[in-house]
Amino acid sequence: MAEYDLVIRNTTIATASDVVKGDIGIAGGRVVALGERLDKGRREIDGTGRIAVPGGIDAHVHFDQDTADGSVFCDDFESGSRAAAAGGTTTIIPFAYQNKGQPLRDAVNKYHARAEGKSLIDYAFHVILSDASEKIMGQDFTALVADGYTSFKVYMTYDDVKLTDREMLDALAAARREQAMLMIHAENSDCITWLTERLELKGMTAAKFHATSRPFVVEREATHRAISLAELLDVPMLLVHVSAKEAMHEIQRAQARGLRVYGETCPQYLFLSEEDFEKPGDEGAKCVCSPPPRGTDNQEHIWTGLSANTFQVLSSDHAAFKFDDVRGKKLPGAAQSFRKIPNGVPGVETRLPLLFSEGVNKGRITLQQFVALSSTNAAKIYGLHPRKGTIAVGSDADIVLWDPERKVSLTNSILHHNCDYTPYEGRELTGYPVMTLSRGEVVMDEGRMSGSAGRGQFQKCDRPEAARPRGRPLIDPSIFN
Amino acid sequence: MAEYDLVIRNTTIATASDVVKGDIGIAGGRVVALGERLDKGRREIDGTGRIAVPGGIDAHVHFDQDTADGSVFCDDFESGSRAAAAGGTTTIIPFAYQNKGQPLRDAVNKYHARAEGKSLIDYAFHVILSDASEKIMGQDFTALVADGYTSFKVYMTYDDVKLTDREMLDALAAARREQAMLMIHAENSDCITWLTERLELKGMTAAKFHATSRPFVVEREATHRAISLAELLDVPMLLVHVSAKEAMHEIQRAQARGLRVYGETCPQYLFLSEEDFEKPGDEGAKCVCSPPPRGTDNQEHIWTGLSANTFQVLSSDHAAFKFDDVRGKKLPGAAQSFRKIPNGVPGVETRLPLLFSEGVNKGRITLQQFVALSSTNAAKIYGLHPRKGTIAVGSDADIVLWDPERKVSLTNSILHHNCDYTPYEGRELTGYPVMTLSRGEVVMDEGRMSGSAGRGQFQKCDRPEAARPRGRPLIDPSIFN
Amino acid sequence: MAEYDLVIRNTTIATASDVVKGDIGIAGGRVVALGERLDKGRREIDGTGRIAVPGGIDAHVHFDQDTADGSVFCDDFESGSRAAAAGGTTTIIPFAYQNKGQPLRDAVNKYHARAEGKSLIDYAFHVILSDASEKIMGQDFTALVADGYTSFKVYMTYDDVKLTDREMLDALAAARREQAMLMIHAENSDCITWLTERLELKGMTAAKFHATSRPFVVEREATHRAISLAELLDVPMLLVHVSAKEAMHEIQRAQARGLRVYGETCPQYLFLSEEDFEKPGDEGAKCVCSPPPRGTDNQEHIWTGLSANTFQVLSSDHAAFKFDDVRGKKLPGAAQSFRKIPNGVPGVETRLPLLFSEGVNKGRITLQQFVALSSTNAAKIYGLHPRKGTIAVGSDADIVLWDPERKVSLTNSILHHNCDYTPYEGRELTGYPVMTLSRGEVVMDEGRMSGSAGRGQFQKCDRPEAARPRGRPLIDPSIFN
Amino acid sequence: MAEYDLVIRNTTIATASDVVKGDIGIAGGRVVALGERLDKGRREIDGTGRIAVPGGIDAHVHFDQDTADGSVFCDDFESGSRAAAAGGTTTIIPFAYQNKGQPLRDAVNKYHARAEGKSLIDYAFHVILSDASEKIMGQDFTALVADGYTSFKVYMTYDDVKLTDREMLDALAAARREQAMLMIHAENSDCITWLTERLELKGMTAAKFHATSRPFVVEREATHRAISLAELLDVPMLLVHVSAKEAMHEIQRAQARGLRVYGETCPQYLFLSEEDFEKPGDEGAKCVCSPPPRGTDNQEHIWTGLSANTFQVLSSDHAAFKFDDVRGKKLPGAAQSFRKIPNGVPGVETRLPLLFSEGVNKGRITLQQFVALSSTNAAKIYGLHPRKGTIAVGSDADIVLWDPERKVSLTNSILHHNCDYTPYEGRELTGYPVMTLSRGEVVMDEGRMSGSAGRGQFQKCDRPEAARPRGRPLIDPSIFN
Ligand SMILES: [Zn+2]
Ligand SMILES: [Zn+2]
Ligand SMILES: [Zn+2]
Ligand SMILES: [Zn+2]
Ligand SMILES: [Zn+2]
Ligand SMILES: [Zn+2]
Ligand SMILES: [Zn+2]
Ligand SMILES: [Zn+2]
Repeated sequence: MAEYDLVIRNTTIATASDVVKGDIGIAGGRVVALGERLDKGRREIDGTGRIAVPGGIDAHVHFDQDTADGSVFCDDFESGSRAAAAGGTTTIIPFAYQNKGQPLRDAVNKYHARAEGKSLIDYAFHVILSDASEKIMGQDFTALVADGYTSFKVYMTYDDVKLTDREMLDALAAARREQAMLMIHAENSDCITWLTERLELKGMTAAKFHATSRPFVVEREATHRAISLAELLDVPMLLVHVSAKEAMHEIQRAQARGLRVYGETCPQYLFLSEEDFEKPGDEGAKCVCSPPPRGTDNQEHIWTGLSANTFQVLSSDHAAFKFDDVRGKKLPGAAQSFRKIPNGVPGVETRLPLLFSEGVNKGRITLQQFVALSSTNAAKIYGLHPRKGTIAVGSDADIVLWDPERKVSLTNSILHHNCDYTPYEGRELTGYPVMTLSRGEVVMDEGRMSGSAGRGQFQKCDRPEAARPRGRPLIDPSIFN
Repeated sequence: MAEYDLVIRNTTIATASDVVKGDIGIAGGRVVALGERLDKGRREIDGTGRIAVPGGIDAHVHFDQDTADGSVFCDDFESGSRAAAAGGTTTIIPFAYQNKGQPLRDAVNKYHARAEGKSLIDYAFHVILSDASEKIMGQDFTALVADGYTSFKVYMTYDDVKLTDREMLDALAAARREQAMLMIHAENSDCITWLTERLELKGMTAAKFHATSRPFVVEREATHRAISLAELLDVPMLLVHVSAKEAMHEIQRAQARGLRVYGETCPQYLFLSEEDFEKPGDEGAKCVCSPPPRGTDNQEHIWTGLSANTFQVLSSDHAAFKFDDVRGKKLPGAAQSFRKIPNGVPGVETRLPLLFSEGVNKGRITLQQFVALSSTNAAKIYGLHPRKGTIAVGSDADIVLWDPERKVSLTNSILHHNCDYTPYEGRELTGYPVMTLSRGEVVMDEGRMSGSAGRGQFQKCDRPEAARPRGRPLIDPSIFN
Repeated sequence: MAEYDLVIRNTTIATASDVVKGDIGIAGGRVVALGERLDKGRREIDGTGRIAVPGGIDAHVHFDQDTADGSVFCDDFESGSRAAAAGGTTTIIPFAYQNKGQPLRDAVNKYHARAEGKSLIDYAFHVILSDASEKIMGQDFTALVADGYTSFKVYMTYDDVKLTDREMLDALAAARREQAMLMIHAENSDCITWLTERLELKGMTAAKFHATSRPFVVEREATHRAISLAELLDVPMLLVHVSAKEAMHEIQRAQARGLRVYGETCPQYLFLSEEDFEKPGDEGAKCVCSPPPRGTDNQEHIWTGLSANTFQVLSSDHAAFKFDDVRGKKLPGAAQSFRKIPNGVPGVETRLPLLFSEGVNKGRITLQQFVALSSTNAAKIYGLHPRKGTIAVGSDADIVLWDPERKVSLTNSILHHNCDYTPYEGRELTGYPVMTLSRGEVVMDEGRMSGSAGRGQFQKCDRPEAARPRGRPLIDPSIFN
Repeated sequence: MAEYDLVIRNTTIATASDVVKGDIGIAGGRVVALGERLDKGRREIDGTGRIAVPGGIDAHVHFDQDTADGSVFCDDFESGSRAAAAGGTTTIIPFAYQNKGQPLRDAVNKYHARAEGKSLIDYAFHVILSDASEKIMGQDFTALVADGYTSFKVYMTYDDVKLTDREMLDALAAARREQAMLMIHAENSDCITWLTERLELKGMTAAKFHATSRPFVVEREATHRAISLAELLDVPMLLVHVSAKEAMHEIQRAQARGLRVYGETCPQYLFLSEEDFEKPGDEGAKCVCSPPPRGTDNQEHIWTGLSANTFQVLSSDHAAFKFDDVRGKKLPGAAQSFRKIPNGVPGVETRLPLLFSEGVNKGRITLQQFVALSSTNAAKIYGLHPRKGTIAVGSDADIVLWDPERKVSLTNSILHHNCDYTPYEGRELTGYPVMTLSRGEVVMDEGRMSGSAGRGQFQKCDRPEAARPRGRPLIDPSIFN
């Protein structure tokens, strides 16, 4: 007879494929059975009226990351992971930032140290690849992939991290060889710099000119370029934080011709717009992030991208800086130029309630799509599936119970991050997570947090199946392998 | 303690979302538990080395259907369902054909009578809607949807069934009102007739001119027209048996702008081509179906449509006529003109082995996509999910075990249909179904059929969630509701 | 030494290709010389400060045409041709309307009789082909083309004229055989009827619902269908009065793949919009025409279609009905339903001033494009070139002098048509025709009309070079020729 | 009474707009009259049976240009201009090459010196802009535009000339300010270098790997990038030598959304293909040029681009190196790697006969399109119109008489360039130029050359109307002006 540490009883179980009624049997932190009437567990939770979904995977968060300008990310692994769990997320994938010239291994070790003893929930790492030199790609990269770091973010802009096209080709070839996943931040660097200089010369330095300095064509150009490079070498990759419908259309064009091009978007592109930069005083700074939110009509296009499966992942791109803080949005110089305003918005805790309320409850996406976009697809694309990203036999018991009818008025005081504002202040939501389990342990129950900081475990990532080339390159891959 | 009629032990369980290892516990014909080590069942099946997938749903088959020209479909519900089960399919959705003017209820009753006592596996019905008059749509249609007939095929060609655009609008409006799913056969009728007459006048009557009479533009035109009508009224619908890449591109364009337009394709568009019509003698007739297979280069585009999720469903469009039979491909007149050759190819048994071997094993699609394309998506689109289409708690125990490495040389003698040929004769496959369970009962084991004819049960279909309008019509729906 | 009846001296001469300074020597009603300092003519006109352009060709006007509903076109060949000449047009191509079953020859003869003794300027005829039966296309059609009637309008909507797809194929095949040009009115008939019935049932009968009954998708659908039929048989053709950007995009797609698909648009799609239907009282009726003007944002797209050469022709589609008249916009029944409002707007006189002022003077198109769009391209597409449509040696001296800086406030009282309103009332224009010559005779000078009614001559049209198939049909043309 | 130095009598006169019969009166090197029966000239030429077209403008030729690798262009201004005239061209626009850091004025002066006393026909200069630093663009550039150098070629590849995106923005902003025309060589530099290095490492160094090192995606990427930069700042520009249909599609997309993006293609993309690189021995080197010719199916797409007006200009990109010469295609090192083979093919003399024979005589383009593509459009785009590029009152008497039925078998021995091969050896042509007049002087008559070297005059270019921004920039141009 089965012995369960915990049974969640009589609930609605949702996966990316199915929504059924049943019980979930958990032992050793894993789902060991799903059934109509499972035997009694040592502990029982009544799931009646709740929806049990795979805990969210926030595949794009910045916690306790180095900066070069004196700004400080206000969330570290402790506050960030707590906020994540409160918002229905059970796995986070922050970034380990490689300084130019630094061995990748050192970067990874540094961020491991920062997570150590802090994270409430499980985590993996993407590596920000700022140096794609032959030495790095030939040895370090290979070793890291073997050790469970299988996704790498590449920037086409920002002076301290950006790669040239040539370096991107090196990175792509290495990713192809190792079956690793590249994540591309696609904006044309030269255009942004050129426009920023001119705006500053003209004294057009208010927060709203941040958007002027990065128009949609800047994102579309880089998106098409990244796709072209990947198409040349036949390498799958993912475009992160897609903002403009025109960039999205490039992804659709690529997918329609069969390329393995994936896309991520974020709540800020569904709920914020250029108009938010016009807020009185310096409130506009609160919404400064890159790429910037676009016109309000653009939002519905991005929703279409979610419902039409153009995007596989909705992440938060949580990059929180306090608003009323000289190490945050009021960094010295920020008043002088939008260029000095730290880029990013908080969102790790609000990501899923926003998507559920406006997506599922408004009928834009199905519950299965919610699960796929919030959890399953990220697990697959980053090599964590099926351990994470689903409720299935053998998977980790990372489960979140949602009350689909819970009314919540979003306000910063109910949030658990260490930021002094939310850009979604005042929104009325329907549907909210009411219990979060991480490997079978309750870490949030009706908004009350539990579980010790540091209980979260590092997760090695597999080589993602999604990163396998489709095998129809434009040029014989033996040339570059 | 749980009591299982049957436990499939230690197998790989695949759904449209996940692939995990575990046991499947079955009782009362349903899956009642999934677990790592389920209690012992009354019967046990060792699933080691096998992949357990949801039994295939063949959502497009023609069995024992009326014809007007003296031709006879060689498969009835008995032989057809047996062949289906042998090929890994556990649910079939044949058509109940409405004659013009006939009440829909009569059509349905007639086909129920034909299935009665015959079908080895479960079945639902699509209704072929040849009369969309106000009386039919206002009463009959509504009643049928309420009784579990929620999908309706509409033809844009064939004189005895085709609807005008106006009738299609009536059908679409009714489908919107009742949340029913329309399936569209999209070819421009006038073009086909016009070309056929001219070909016959010129004496160009061999089987290969069947393709000449229905070029890709004929399919693209009707596809765009159907999409336009559905877009006008904001009604989801599915294009059946998409053949030409140009038609597929219209579907992609529609999906990219957010329309709920679904697509089905068939093995004949992946494996056959125009060249097959050129076979010596009258062998070309074997591959005559509509729309016709296109050029060989078109095949890879259709594969792209599967891997890129443009298509949700791969059906067989099994419409089998014997080759060497005057009631089949050698119908009197067939030698005089391709127009008289009965349209259709057999495929209900070979559909899944072909898709598995060339799709999964060749890396074009994932195992999860195989499940989605062969079973889950059809269940969702036609209102059978989650009872059918998945392996989940509470779903029917329609399960097929595949040996992913089994080598099979396709030849008609190993097939169970009542047709004297297969168009895929001689193909070498890797991967084959080795056991089929229908509601927990073994109906095929290593090719040996069991279970009594007539054990299959009619399945009422729910109003499909997929048929819900997205809510952004071009014109206020209160005008036509 | 040359003898000129008339020399236009020292002017700017514009063709579709060139803008140069010089003199124009005219004899026998034709241009016989162009030069820097031509010999003296019997009469001299000082062209200093003027631009001499080829007289406009209005390739789409309805004068004195039969109607079925008691409405009366308020312009006949006399008032219509006078207004045309006043507005810078020297050739008009009205329609000879074939009633179903009527021999084409009879239709042509009837309209010849109506033009006789009336037209101030030269004219040709398009034939409205409402009956494409074998008899008509096999004999009548061929004879007419030989006699100089080489363009035929085909309707996809309006019950009394519309052709089925099959009839369109017959018409296209005949056009291909005879090298005639088809002009397509592309709107989906069934959609319009279906929507209109429902609107009327709901009592939504005001003028503004005219637009609701013919949304863009109705035009896009028919446009794509017409293109598909023409593509099938490899026949050039022209889409008339393109209104919606979505229809325009279908034309662009066709042109980009090399099809000989031409497009016409009209001032009403550049200057009017849906908002005009909302005017107080029944003023909305003034702008009722088909297809209807679209949203204001659509206008700039249509301008793009002109500047990008998507459209070859800007015609007026002059179809004038008086506003305050029971045989016009206030036809009995018009108050009951938009369906009864006669379709059409006046525009033959305002077409070119609007295009010049907003096109040339605002920099959207070049002067050469103005000439091409207003005159040259129509001459080529309808077989009148180089007799008409240019200022070149040997061409008819149909010349209009423009004052490019003349300020005119458009108001109905300055117009010469027989209509009691202009939809462009109150517009301020820069640039206006100040003299019109028809075959060397001044028919307008600073707004004063001269020349006798009936002086205009019928012009036989050649088989247009533009109607020659490109020679790459989808199917062997020997099949249908 | 008019006095003509020369009258071309009774000929067919073709412009980009019209084809008419008449006489051409020439005095002072200019066309001073066109007429039906002009007075007698001092000299008369019988034009019966001939077509008089505006002399060709070859807007893309490389004569006597500096190289860095020891290779030598085999044609200088003398042989090059003679070959041009022999092939029906009367104006050439070669390049003045700026070395990095060199003042533009110095570059221009250097090439003036090379043309001096050499050119048989008139010429202007494009300037190759390899240094777009602020100093150059702020002063030098402005001065040159004022002096008649209004077009500038910008390279996105080749180490010694390529501009970064930032430098391209500087160049585009300056071009916008001065209304100058940028010509873009669009290939992604990093991709080419990266691929070339890998090919060489693998020993894949034969001529055919030149094509492998520059696949279509490399051209498509750069084309889209250039368009995006120009779209950002709202600056017209021209893509030179477009080779791949995918690059052409980017131009079509840009044009369809109303951008002033122009395109040039060349005979090598209509008549050569990748297969030519496979020729025996080192013959493949003869066709090495960049971008490379593509697959044979690509050729018909490029023809479509000509007939559909996607391309405005057909130039030769004449860049001739001898084949059997160590300063040519057999440069030391060429045998070691395709990378060392001098890039370019001869074509200044064959450009127009090829276009006439395969374009006009095969019905792909009209005679007017021939004139536009070969002469008029280039004159407009580069500020030489209407002095050059047409036969009109006041234009230079640069006229070429064609015998449209002349049969010529192309072979290098009949050509006048200084190259030892033509890539079109053996082609059979119909239609050939039989007389070339430059400013009224016969420089070629039935293949016999006359006129002194050095008689050609430098032509200052106007600011092209075609370079005027359309006035709808994405960002307020006051920011960067
Ligand atoms: Zn980023
Ligand atoms: Zn980020
Ligand atoms: Zn069908
Ligand atoms: Zn079927
Ligand atoms: Zn019309
Ligand atoms: Zn009309
Ligand atoms: Zn170049
Ligand atoms: Zn060049």
